[in-house]
Amino acid sequence: MDFDLISKAQYSEARAGIISTGHGKIETPVFMPVGTAGSVKGIHSRDLKEDIEATIILGNSYHLYLRPGIPVIENAGGLHKFIRWNGPILTDSGGYQVFSLGDIRKLSEEGAKFQSHIDGSYHIFTPEKVIDIQRSIGADIIMAFDECTPADADYDYAGKSLELTNRWLNRCFEQFHKTEPEYGFPQSLFPIVQGSIYPALRKKAVQDVMTFEADGFAIGGLSVGEPEDVMYEITEVVTGMLPENKPRYLMGVGTPPNILESIDRGIDMFDCVIPTRNGRNGMLFTSEGIINIRNKKWENDHSPIDKNGTSFVDNYSKAYLRHLINSGEMLGAQIASHHNLAFYIQLVKTARDKIMQGGFKDWKKEMVIQLNKRL
Amino acid sequence: MDFDLISKAQYSEARAGIISTGHGKIETPVFMPVGTAGSVKGIHSRDLKEDIEATIILGNSYHLYLRPGIPVIENAGGLHKFIRWNGPILTDSGGYQVFSLGDIRKLSEEGAKFQSHIDGSYHIFTPEKVIDIQRSIGADIIMAFDECTPADADYDYAGKSLELTNRWLNRCFEQFHKTEPEYGFPQSLFPIVQGSIYPALRKKAVQDVMTFEADGFAIGGLSVGEPEDVMYEITEVVTGMLPENKPRYLMGVGTPPNILESIDRGIDMFDCVIPTRNGRNGMLFTSEGIINIRNKKWENDHSPIDKNGTSFVDNYSKAYLRHLINSGEMLGAQIASHHNLAFYIQLVKTARDKIMQGGFKDWKKEMVIQLNKRL
Repeated sequence: MDFDLISKAQYSEARAGIISTGHGKIETPVFMPVGTAGSVKGIHSRDLKEDIEATIILGNSYHLYLRPGIPVIENAGGLHKFIRWNGPILTDSGGYQVFSLGDIRKLSEEGAKFQSHIDGSYHIFTPEKVIDIQRSIGADIIMAFDECTPADADYDYAGKSLELTNRWLNRCFEQFHKTEPEYGFPQSLFPIVQGSIYPALRKKAVQDVMTFEADGFAIGGLSVGEPEDVMYEITEVVTGMLPENKPRYLMGVGTPPNILESIDRGIDMFDCVIPTRNGRNGMLFTSEGIINIRNKKWENDHSPIDKNGTSFVDNYSKAYLRHLINSGEMLGAQIASHHNLAFYIQLVKTARDKIMQGGFKDWKKEMVIQLNKRL
Repeated sequence: MDFDLISKAQYSEARAGIISTGHGKIETPVFMPVGTAGSVKGIHSRDLKEDIEATIILGNSYHLYLRPGIPVIENAGGLHKFIRWNGPILTDSGGYQVFSLGDIRKLSEEGAKFQSHIDGSYHIFTPEKVIDIQRSIGADIIMAFDECTPADADYDYAGKSLELTNRWLNRCFEQFHKTEPEYGFPQSLFPIVQGSIYPALRKKAVQDVMTFEADGFAIGGLSVGEPEDVMYEITEVVTGMLPENKPRYLMGVGTPPNILESIDRGIDMFDCVIPTRNGRNGMLFTSEGIINIRNKKWENDHSPIDKNGTSFVDNYSKAYLRHLINSGEMLGAQIASHHNLAFYIQLVKTARDKIMQGGFKDWKKEMVIQLNKRL
């Protein structure tokens, strides 16, 4: 995997670059739609590529391991072939999902024991096993197995958690170097910077991850309940120390303003379930602000969902979408998810244009105000 | 509305024709996807037109009247504009839905009182009101308000029910002639032939409906629980008496073999929820037979859903679709519904080709065997 940094914005840490993978190039900054169980909910891969113009999507090791199971994916020749997506894929390690299980998982030095959320069966994830799983899934970018420290962790707990994450990271890289890609194209392993809300721990974490020759670095454990200001502050601390010539991935973030603010602080890659999950519930992100399409005020609004929208679904009217969502029609969830993903991706593409052409900082300031409006 | 009968099959009552509406032409025989509440479940109107190649779709007066309500549809400029479908539309009168409500509806000479299945509110449908509703919805083809006689009705009940349906039919046509289309293009009112499983009543019903100058005729009250042989027998009785120069619409039928057998008996138009409803549950109709995609046997079958499929969704594999359906992923329901609709429409198009080129009867015989196979 290569990363070319091709432009930096003025008065900002924002950057434009190109990641080259075995499945094609990714212009950064980039928003990556989340396809947890091998499907971006409600969206055909054809539409993801041709209409939404996604250049990379996510899969999740925890979900794919439980269902359909790794043997099925190997039998298909890897996740790309299984889901009919021939662009780049990134898989999360499942660390976040396992830790979200709460009472039904138990941590030890070896790894995390947990019960399946589907059938209660017992499993263990170790750093080695998670690398093996991700070799079999075959994503272009794979993630280290870490402990995602809770937002309310005290300094002591967060410090110990970080030490465990670091020992696990060593084991991940050992296993990564001992094994080979299964499908003939390269894979890159990204370490994850943890350290909760404590700048000192985050600095320590960056020093830890930089001891590995990684193709890129992720920031985890943010957007997990801490105030936005803290998230931005920590992001700045981390991007300020990471090497310039590698992509930085802020995991699980966030709203459109969160994304613009984080681009401003030097982040290159994003993923988040907000566009699809909130879309299914009737929340739309548009060029003019946020719409709750369930509201009575849209009942007779026959104008397009987003007059500046770039997707074919923007041709549907607000009144029709409201009817579909309020009636529980599947098509409502499809349209809202599709619109939101197209909106996110266009927004990040526009940010990239502004970085390259100049004017990013002023544009961002205006957009954040606009994007926070409730229509 | 015009109907041109352009070809008749040998050794069969099967016909090929063209219906011309204010929203374009429809080649018959035709299968019409069902968009009950203004949406063919899980399918974008763009894909219905361009990929599935539907030429006409259905809406339902009962569902649309309750939600989003007629004022919203009028405000949008009619159903075509509301749902972004510029091809022909047919609306059912809601008779079937109201009678399906069972205990929460009450019949009288005036009409049917019923409670909404959504919020329990009280409503009344009369023949006049149902015509008014369908004027406001604005479909190209609208249906008379009838009593859908239950399959287990005795001769006496069925006879009385037919008399009521006939009096209501008179009132429907009166109201139809008293009113005008609201959106500047013509509408055609189809009477519905009832009479349950009794040939004598069906003959009486055909004589009744033929007293009106209708652009086409529907056959209702079949595929409601009676044996298939009876359905075919009654269909033959009815099509044998209906005028040749008008299209015949067999309501709510059926499986792929049902459709081929009914084409053979002179039916031109079909609608049914089977392709979408059964699709959502994992049942696929393919060129090689019926697939229950939930079965373990497809777990590692990475071949296309239907190797002879014409839709882009046929490129997905059986194993992937099985995973999506078993995981409750929305995309699974979308793919299965989409495939089934495309399959139905291609099957009926092929039937039309066979009628025009010759060989329909032999082809039908082979196909019915093939289509009944469980894979």
